[in-house]
Amino acid sequence: DGSSVDSLDYEVIENFAYREEQARRGKLYVSYLLVVKWIFALLIGIGTGLAAVFINLSVENFAGWKFSLTFSIIQKSYIAGFLLYALINLVLVFSSVYIVTQFAPAAAGSGIPEIKGYLNGVDIHGILLLRTLIGKIFGSIGSVGGGLALGKEGPLVHTGACIASLLGQGGSTKYHINSRWFQVFRSDRDRRDLVTCGCAAGVAAAFRAPVGGVLFALEEVTSWYGILMRTAMGWCKNGNCGHFGSGGFIIWDISDGQEDYSFAELLPMAIIGVIGGLLGALFNQLTLYISSWRRNHLHKKGIRVKIIEACLVSLLTSIISFCLPLLRKCSPCPASDPTSGIECPRPPGMYGNYVNFFCSSDKEYNDLATIFFNTQDDAIRNLFSAKTMHEYSSQSLLTFLVMFYTLAVLTFGTAVPAGQFVPGIMIGSTYGRLVGMFVVKYYKKPNIEEGTYALLGAASFLGGSMRMTVSLCVIMVEITNNLKLLPLIMLVLLMSKAVGDAFNEGLYEEQARLRGIPLLESRPKYEMRNMTAKEACGSGRVISLPRVVKVSDVVSILRSNKHNGFPVIDHTRSGESLVIGLVLRSHLLVILQSKVDFQHSPLPSDPRGGDRSIRHDSHEFAKPVSSKGRSIDDIHLSSDDLEMYIDLAPFLNPSPYIVPEDMSLAKVYNLFRQLGLRHLFVVPRPSRVLGLITRKDLLIED
Amino acid sequence: DGSSVDSLDYEVIENFAYREEQARRGKLYVSYLLVVKWIFALLIGIGTGLAAVFINLSVENFAGWKFSLTFSIIQKSYIAGFLLYALINLVLVFSSVYIVTQFAPAAAGSGIPEIKGYLNGVDIHGILLLRTLIGKIFGSIGSVGGGLALGKEGPLVHTGACIASLLGQGGSTKYHINSRWFQVFRSDRDRRDLVTCGCAAGVAAAFRAPVGGVLFALEEVTSWYGILMRTAMGWCKNGNCGHFGSGGFIIWDISDGQEDYSFAELLPMAIIGVIGGLLGALFNQLTLYISSWRRNHLHKKGIRVKIIEACLVSLLTSIISFCLPLLRKCSPCPASDPTSGIECPRPPGMYGNYVNFFCSSDKEYNDLATIFFNTQDDAIRNLFSAKTMHEYSSQSLLTFLVMFYTLAVLTFGTAVPAGQFVPGIMIGSTYGRLVGMFVVKYYKKPNIEEGTYALLGAASFLGGSMRMTVSLCVIMVEITNNLKLLPLIMLVLLMSKAVGDAFNEGLYEEQARLRGIPLLESRPKYEMRNMTAKEACGSGRVISLPRVVKVSDVVSILRSNKHNGFPVIDHTRSGESLVIGLVLRSHLLVILQSKVDFQHSPLPSDPRGGDRSIRHDSHEFAKPVSSKGRSIDDIHLSSDDLEMYIDLAPFLNPSPYIVPEDMSLAKVYNLFRQLGLRHLFVVPRPSRVLGLITRKDLLIED
Ligand SMILES: Nc1ncnc2c1ncn2[C@@H]1O[C@H](COP(=O)(O)OP(=O)(O)OP(=O)(O)O)[C@@H](O)[C@H]1O
Ligand SMILES: Nc1ncnc2c1ncn2[C@@H]1O[C@H](COP(=O)(O)OP(=O)(O)OP(=O)(O)O)[C@@H](O)[C@H]1O
Ligand SMILES: [Mg+2]
Ligand SMILES: [Mg+2]
Repeated sequence: DGSSVDSLDYEVIENFAYREEQARRGKLYVSYLLVVKWIFALLIGIGTGLAAVFINLSVENFAGWKFSLTFSIIQKSYIAGFLLYALINLVLVFSSVYIVTQFAPAAAGSGIPEIKGYLNGVDIHGILLLRTLIGKIFGSIGSVGGGLALGKEGPLVHTGACIASLLGQGGSTKYHINSRWFQVFRSDRDRRDLVTCGCAAGVAAAFRAPVGGVLFALEEVTSWYGILMRTAMGWCKNGNCGHFGSGGFIIWDISDGQEDYSFAELLPMAIIGVIGGLLGALFNQLTLYISSWRRNHLHKKGIRVKIIEACLVSLLTSIISFCLPLLRKCSPCPASDPTSGIECPRPPGMYGNYVNFFCSSDKEYNDLATIFFNTQDDAIRNLFSAKTMHEYSSQSLLTFLVMFYTLAVLTFGTAVPAGQFVPGIMIGSTYGRLVGMFVVKYYKKPNIEEGTYALLGAASFLGGSMRMTVSLCVIMVEITNNLKLLPLIMLVLLMSKAVGDAFNEGLYEEQARLRGIPLLESRPKYEMRNMTAKEACGSGRVISLPRVVKVSDVVSILRSNKHNGFPVIDHTRSGESLVIGLVLRSHLLVILQSKVDFQHSPLPSDPRGGDRSIRHDSHEFAKPVSSKGRSIDDIHLSSDDLEMYIDLAPFLNPSPYIVPEDMSLAKVYNLFRQLGLRHLFVVPRPSRVLGLITRKDLLIED
Repeated sequence: DGSSVDSLDYEVIENFAYREEQARRGKLYVSYLLVVKWIFALLIGIGTGLAAVFINLSVENFAGWKFSLTFSIIQKSYIAGFLLYALINLVLVFSSVYIVTQFAPAAAGSGIPEIKGYLNGVDIHGILLLRTLIGKIFGSIGSVGGGLALGKEGPLVHTGACIASLLGQGGSTKYHINSRWFQVFRSDRDRRDLVTCGCAAGVAAAFRAPVGGVLFALEEVTSWYGILMRTAMGWCKNGNCGHFGSGGFIIWDISDGQEDYSFAELLPMAIIGVIGGLLGALFNQLTLYISSWRRNHLHKKGIRVKIIEACLVSLLTSIISFCLPLLRKCSPCPASDPTSGIECPRPPGMYGNYVNFFCSSDKEYNDLATIFFNTQDDAIRNLFSAKTMHEYSSQSLLTFLVMFYTLAVLTFGTAVPAGQFVPGIMIGSTYGRLVGMFVVKYYKKPNIEEGTYALLGAASFLGGSMRMTVSLCVIMVEITNNLKLLPLIMLVLLMSKAVGDAFNEGLYEEQARLRGIPLLESRPKYEMRNMTAKEACGSGRVISLPRVVKVSDVVSILRSNKHNGFPVIDHTRSGESLVIGLVLRSHLLVILQSKVDFQHSPLPSDPRGGDRSIRHDSHEFAKPVSSKGRSIDDIHLSSDDLEMYIDLAPFLNPSPYIVPEDMSLAKVYNLFRQLGLRHLFVVPRPSRVLGLITRKDLLIED
C-alpha cells in the first residue's frame, strides 16, 4: 500500500509568491526566524520533557500501586492476589488498546519506523497529528503500566516528534486550534528540522541522555548541522525540568561496577556480542513474520480483533509473570553484609533486590520473582546491580530469557504504543548476566561483576536488533553513568551489528519495508553504477502542461493519473519548446479550488504587473503535515469555469534540478538523496555551456 | 595567495577508464574495499595512537627532567637555576623551529584550519606530506617540551590526518616509499573519508576522548555517516594501546568534584559564559592582527627571522614563568588534612599542588609557581582540583591570567607546531577559578568547588574562541570524567559561542581566511537567494575544447589561462553542438606527457574498440594529495607531436552536474556544497523533459 504514502519535498520552491515574500521581508526576517527557531527548540524540549515526566509519573504510580496492592493481598491468598494483578493489568491494557484503536490508530507500535521515514522524506498519513500525540501519551501509560513486554522509550521519541511538528504548523489544523502567529515554518524542510529536534528531545527525555539524543537525531539526518545547537538548547532546558543536579540523568547507575579488565575477558565479551547478533537478528525475523501475518490476516478482521488480541496477550503476560515464579524454589538469603546496604529479603512494598515471593521461610527470596514480578526499570536495575554475586541461578535466568523473549515477540505488533528498547535491555542483560556467571565461575578473579556483563549483554542485543552503533553506545554510557565501559560497549555493539547484518536488516528498516515506507538508504546500490538516469525513469511518455492551460485540461490530466508533479513547457516566439518549470499537483488543486486565477484569455498574463501578488498568501499552498491533502474529486467546477484558462507561470517552481540523460544512476541517487528531492528532470544533453561555477564564484563577501 | 590553492573534486569521474575498471572488478570488489577500509581505519587508529604515545612520553620526560634538574639547582642558586631552565627551553624551542623552518614549513601552527580546509574541499600544498608528519611530531615535542604557551592537541589531529592520507595513497610519492598494493583509494572522496577518520583518531588520541573525536569529525563532514563505524573501530583499538581498563581515558579527573547545584549558581556560570565569549573573541581578533602582521612583514624577511622570533618568545616565556613567581610572597600551608592525601609543600620533584618555590619557611608554598612554574597538564590538574579551597589568591590568578593570555597571543603564529586547546583551557580555568572563589566567598555553601568553576571557565573560553559546541562539550566531559556537569558545560559553551559570534568568526575560520583557504560555509549567504547562477559565473567567454583537438591547440589553451576544467563540445552530424563532458587540466597534462594517445587523424577513434583500454592505468590520473601537481611548462613536445591530434572522449567526465541558468544561487550553493563539487556547468533551459525521477525509481531491489 505504498500509494498511501506521499513524498516530502525538501527543496525550496522558488515560485513567484516565494520570491515576493522574500523581497518583502528582507534580511532581518532571517534573524527573526532564527530566534523563533531557538524558541521553538526550547518549547519542544520543555514540552517533550513534560510529556516524559507525565508518562513516567503515571506509570510509576500505577505500577507501584499495583504491586503493593498485590503484595498485600498475597499475604492472605495467592489466588486472590493473582486475580487482582491480572485484572489491573487487563484494565490498563484495555484502556490503552481502546484509545489507540478507536481514536488514534497511528499511535500503535513504536513509531520509530514512521519517524525514520518522515526524516528520510516520506510523509505517512496520520503520523504527526494531535490525536496521535494524545493516543501515544495515554496509550503508553496503559500499555507500560499494564506490564506488557514493551517499553515507553520509542513512543516518547514519537511524542517528541509530534510535539515538534504541531508546534511547527502552529497547532492542529483539523481541530482548528492553530494560531497564524506560529505559522512561520511552511516548507517541508523547516518542518523536518523541527521534527529532528523533536526526536532528539524525545531520546533525551526518554533516556535522560542528551548527547545520545543529539547523536540519534544525527544518525537519522546528518545533513543539517545547525540543528544540533538548537537541540542542545532544548535538552539543556529539559535536563533542568525536575532533575537538576546530582544524578538526575542516570537511570541505572553502575558506576560502582567493575573497574578493571583482563584481556582474557575479551573472549566472553565477544561471545556476548555474537549471541546478541544472533538473538537480535532472530528477533527481527520473528517479529517480521508475525507482523506481516497480523497485517494480512488478523488485523483485517477489524478493530474488535485487535482489542481481543491485546487483552489476551495481557492475560498471558500476567499468568507467566505471576505463576512462573511460584513454581520456582526459593533460595536462602546470602550471609548478610550490613555495609552493602542490601536487605534480604527486602521489606514488602519496597524496591530492590531479593523479593520474598511464595517462600516458606522468612530468610529466603525468590530470584525469578525479583526480575519477573517487578517493574521493568527495577528488574533492569537488579540485573545490572553489582555486589550481588550469585543472586540469580542460571536456571531462573534461562527461564526468564526464554519466556520474556517469547512474550516480547508476541507483544510486538499488537495495537498499543510499544517501544522495543527496554524489552531489548531486559533480554540482553539476562543472557549477559548468564555469561557473567560463567565468567565468575571459571575465571576466578575477585573483581568481576555480573552486572557489568549484563550491561554488555543489553548493548549487544540492542546492537543486534536495531543496528545503530554510535548513538546506542552513547545512550548506554549515559544511562549507566560509566564512561570506562565505553570501549567495551562499542566492541560488543560492533560485533553484534556485524553478526546481525549477516542475516537481515535492522528492526526499524524491516518494519518500515513491511509498512510500505520507501526508505532511501544513504548510499546507492551497486547496480546503479551501470544504469543511466534515462533507464531508471522508464519509457512512459512524460505528462506535461503548457504554460497557459485550459481548466478542463487540467482537470482531465489530474484525473487521468496519480503523479504529483508535472513539467510545464512553453514555446518561444520562434516556435522552440522550452521547459519553464515544474508544477505540483497540490498547487494545481489550490488554484482550482480558489478560482481567483482563472482568466478568459488563452494568452499569458504578465506575472509582474497587476494585482496577482495579493491573490494568494503563500501559506495557502502549504500542506499540513501527515494529512491526506485535497483530492481532485473534492473540487467542483461549473462548466463556465471549465472553459477558462490558467497561467501557471507564477505558481511553478522555475528551476527544478536537472540531470543529463546519461548520468549514471548512482550519481543521480546521491543528488536526490543528499538534497532531499522529490522530482528530478531527466533532460537531453545541453548544447552549450553558458558558464562554469567553481568555488571562487560562491565566495561572496558581505 | 588563493592561487596556490586547488580545489578537490569529490565527484566520481565516470570516464572510460573508470567504467572499465568497474566492469572488470564487479561486486565482490566492493566488499574487498570495505574490508580494506576497516583495516585502514584500524591502522590509522593504531598509528595515531602510537604517535600520541611517543609525543606524550617525550614531552613528559623532557619536561620532567627539566623541572627536576632546575629544582635541584635552585636549592643552591636561583640564578643558576634560571639560566639552566631558560637554556633548556631555548634548546628545545630552537630544535623545533629549526626542524619546521628548514624541513617542514607546513608543520607550523596547529594545522586545524588547513585540515578544515581539506575536508571542506581545498587542497593546500604540503599539508599532508610525509615531511609534514615528521616535522609535526618532532616539532611539537620541542615546542611543548620547551614550555611555550601552546598545546600538542591540534598538532596531533594534524598528525592523524597525515597518517591517514599517507596510508591512503600508499606511502609518500616523493620519497618513493610507496607500495602499489595499498593504492586502492584514488579518488579525492575516498581520501577525504580517510582523512576524516584520521582527524577523529587524532582527537581521540589527543584527548583520549573517543566519542568527542567522532563528533569532532562529524562537525567537519557530516556527509558520510559510515565513517563513524570505522572510526569507532579505530579508537577502540586506540583506547587499548597502553591504557586498557581503569582510568586510561581520563586526563583530568574531576569526578570527585561538586555534586549539586542551586539555581542561584546559574548566575555566576552565565557570567563565566559571557567572559569566555568576550575573551575568546578578543583572542581571535588579536591573533588575527598579529598573524597578518607576521605574514605581511616579519616572515617575509626569511627563515632566520622566524628562528630568532621563536627563540625570543621562548626566552620571554622562561623569564616570565620563572621570575614572576619569585616576586610573589609565599603563603603558609593550610592546616594539613591527612585524609585528603595532599601534602603541603609537596616534596621536590613530585607533581601536585603546593609548590615550595623561593619561600623562606618550610611550611609555605608559592601559589603562582604552582600554576606557572609547572607543566601545563599539571597546572590544569591543579586548577581543576577539588578540595583545595583557597589554595590560590585572586591576585596570583589575575597575574597569571594576564601574563599567560599575552604569552599565548604572542606565541600564536610563531613557526612551531602549536595547538590552542591546552592554552585555552589554562586561560579559561584561571578566570573560572577566580569566579569560583567569589562564589565560595559570597554564596557560603559548603559544597561549592572552585575546581568545577575552573572547568566551566575552560569550556567557556574554548567555546568563545573555537565556537564548536557539541564536540567540545563531549570532549570536556570525556577528559574530566564527570557526566553530571554536562548540562552546565553545554550552557556555558552556548553562551560563550553566542557572545563570541556577535564580534567575529571562530579562531579557525579567521585563520583559514587569513591564509587564503576558501572555506564554504554550510549555508548560502542571504544575498544568494536573489542571484542567479548565470550572474555568479561572470560574463567571460567559456573556454572549451572540441572532442578531437590538435595538440598545439591544447598546449596554447593550457598556457593561456589557469582554469582547471574545460567543457568538451562535440558536433552531431546534423551540425548541432552538444556538450559531451568536462576534461580536467591535470588529465590533459597526463595525456600530453605520456603521448600514447596522440593520433594522426583528426577524426574520432572508436573508444570501445582497439587497445585503448590498456594504454593507461587509472592510477596514472590520480593526483598525489597536497602536492603541486604537473605544470604545462614541465612538458616538452616536439613539433611533430604538436601537429598530432587527441581524441578526448575516453578521458572526459561524461556527466558533470548541470544547472539551468536562472536557478537561484542559493540552490546552486547547496548543490555544490553538499555534493562537494569542483565544477558545475550553467546551461540554457532544456527544451524537453525526457523523464521524471522520483523516489520510486530509486528503489531498486536486489
Ligand atoms: N509527470 C509525469 N509524467 C510521466 N511520468 C511521471 C510523471 N511524474 C512521475 N512519473 C513517473 O511515474 C512513476 C511513479 O511516480 P509518482 O507518480 O508516484 O511520483 P509522484 O507521486 O509525483 O512522487 P511521490 O510519489 O514520490 O510523491 C515514476 O517512475 C515516475 O518516473
Ligand atoms: N573553462 C573555463 N572557461 C571560462 N571560465 C572559466 C573556466 N573555468 C573556470 N572559469 C571561471 O574562472 C573563474 C576562476 O576559476 P578557476 O579557473 O580558478 O577554476 P578552477 O581552477 O577550474 O577550479 P579551482 O580553482 O576551484 O580548482 C571562475 O569564476 C570560473 O567561473
Ligand atoms: Mg506518488
Ligand atoms: Mg583555480
